[in-house]
Amino acid sequence: MINFTPGPSQLYFTVETHVRQAFRDGVTSMSHRSKEFEVISKSAKEGLKELLGIPNDFHIFFVGSATEIWERTIQNLVREQSLHFVNGAFSKRFHEIATQLGKCATKIEAPLGQIFESNYKIDSTLELIALTHNETSTGAMLSMDFINQFRTQSPDSLIVVDAVSSLPYPQFNFSKIDSVFFSVQKGFGLPAGLGIWIVNDRCIAKAESLQSKGISIGTYHNLPTLLSNAKKNQTPETPNVLGIYLLGKVIEDFLRRGISIIRKETEYKAAIFYQAISAHPLMQPFVSDANARSQTVLVAETGNHTELIKKQLEAHGFFPGDGYGEQKKTQLRFANFPTHSKETFERLVDLLVNVN
Amino acid sequence: MINFTPGPSQLYFTVETHVRQAFRDGVTSMSHRSKEFEVISKSAKEGLKELLGIPNDFHIFFVGSATEIWERTIQNLVREQSLHFVNGAFSKRFHEIATQLGKCATKIEAPLGQIFESNYKIDSTLELIALTHNETSTGAMLSMDFINQFRTQSPDSLIVVDAVSSLPYPQFNFSKIDSVFFSVQKGFGLPAGLGIWIVNDRCIAKAESLQSKGISIGTYHNLPTLLSNAKKNQTPETPNVLGIYLLGKVIEDFLRRGISIIRKETEYKAAIFYQAISAHPLMQPFVSDANARSQTVLVAETGNHTELIKKQLEAHGFFPGDGYGEQKKTQLRFANFPTHSKETFERLVDLLVNVN
Repeated sequence: MINFTPGPSQLYFTVETHVRQAFRDGVTSMSHRSKEFEVISKSAKEGLKELLGIPNDFHIFFVGSATEIWERTIQNLVREQSLHFVNGAFSKRFHEIATQLGKCATKIEAPLGQIFESNYKIDSTLELIALTHNETSTGAMLSMDFINQFRTQSPDSLIVVDAVSSLPYPQFNFSKIDSVFFSVQKGFGLPAGLGIWIVNDRCIAKAESLQSKGISIGTYHNLPTLLSNAKKNQTPETPNVLGIYLLGKVIEDFLRRGISIIRKETEYKAAIFYQAISAHPLMQPFVSDANARSQTVLVAETGNHTELIKKQLEAHGFFPGDGYGEQKKTQLRFANFPTHSKETFERLVDLLVNVN
Repeated sequence: MINFTPGPSQLYFTVETHVRQAFRDGVTSMSHRSKEFEVISKSAKEGLKELLGIPNDFHIFFVGSATEIWERTIQNLVREQSLHFVNGAFSKRFHEIATQLGKCATKIEAPLGQIFESNYKIDSTLELIALTHNETSTGAMLSMDFINQFRTQSPDSLIVVDAVSSLPYPQFNFSKIDSVFFSVQKGFGLPAGLGIWIVNDRCIAKAESLQSKGISIGTYHNLPTLLSNAKKNQTPETPNVLGIYLLGKVIEDFLRRGISIIRKETEYKAAIFYQAISAHPLMQPFVSDANARSQTVLVAETGNHTELIKKQLEAHGFFPGDGYGEQKKTQLRFANFPTHSKETFERLVDLLVNVN
């Protein structure tokens, strides 16, 4: 059985072996104040920096979930106003969280399955610009040019990128953004229960500045507290130690395979998938603009044929994800993560081509 | 090797088998919006209600850690003022979090290794009374009479009990308290990364009342949002699904063994331990008042003999926890959790008796 739901998704194929090793090595009952934990935590962070090309003025923090990072981002980085680019359920939720926290959160919207016009005039006094690189609900993906345009226009704004369902695929230009985050149960193929928050020194400075003005930035998971613990390769609370260990191990596997190979394979798999469904009479890519199509969450508009297509795939052990929300019965979503091999996608495409 | 550190501690002996089953059953890549997850979540909650005798006006929520619950408790249940009973590092941290969140948080302090005078006159306008049932740092444990006295004195105050390192041992009278919480890596013998927050309808009403007054109670993990998701046996964010599954399985194991047997064995193990160290020339219980001695985190004052005792135990594969903070080199802590069998404690006591 192969799971194509876009998260939690199919585990990376090495995870079960790493879990067995974790039990043998006592990771599952290890103190988070021990030297052994510090080694595990440091190794996961250094591996991630190498994998994604993260510069040294960025810090990596382990928290509960990407949902938590939405809240902590607003709490730590916004005094009054944030701007959100919203084109689906998840970018919408990020905006809602800012509103719920009492911020003046404005949004620029695009219809489901679309991205945004390429040039925006941004108010340069904005504190934070929130971008969702890959809208998991619709399979629309922002271009790097789009993301990178804001730094020049508004050098003082913090630019924050939700890359929950795209990393490790995208190659960000870290000089153009201030923060990026993801959760481990998607592209990294791990059991759920860990969010990874990457921020630069500008974010730390902003949080400290809010704190010094007496504005609440939370307690154990505010940026200064996360940073002072991370400097010791520790965490403020008892974290998901096993999850951090497994992340480090899967990153080692990714590094061994090579990130450029992972990226090229991702594009190859997406290309043969979109080609097959574009040519098929019963389905088509939901995102019509080819440049806006996600490389990691591939969404097929399947209309009345959804059940038929699903059944034929499931009969061969291939389990697609349902469409999101109102699209539950008319779309199918296919995760294209590092755990899904070229051979798997070639078989998937064969099965799709033969659906009738 | 047997790990006596008071958390993360020795795993419950069935955990590795349950993890293997979880991989076989696809729990590790299960969607938290699936029926299968709802079954797992419901089963863990119902098992816990049965195990601890939790009444139906209480709700069980899965969050990241007990540290998170400190923050969420203050955020959701306190508008202005809370009272904290502080007798060690962890009760102190709970108080600090309230202060950091801008509340008028007062404290009543007792020296390390002691509990509080039995009768307190409480200001009945207090919103919240925070009690730490078992101070993990010192091994001092509150009596049930102490905890239960507050309801009558101050019926409108919410009474919140941190039972991080004592559950499932204590048998709370849920008509006398409003909330209790723990994390899974201690008494439940699970890998770290999950906090369990138990609250009654009075807590929900308080959070709703703060929210209706425009006071921020957080976003995805505020009580009304947790409740509306929990009613569907779901969680607001992608949670630690494996952790929730394992909790349910270990609770089944505990229920099979019987909670009264677990409680009796806990008391037996604590009794033989305290008896042995009380009679020993090189060590003594740190908590001098026998009625204040923890049944689940047993702390020995070992002074200059700490290294000697530690080495002799470790030579037999018995690994005690260090003393906490400034007591690191002069005390040893021994977790007495359900995973530590009577036979294990009988051997530990033999080894301790023979230390010279």
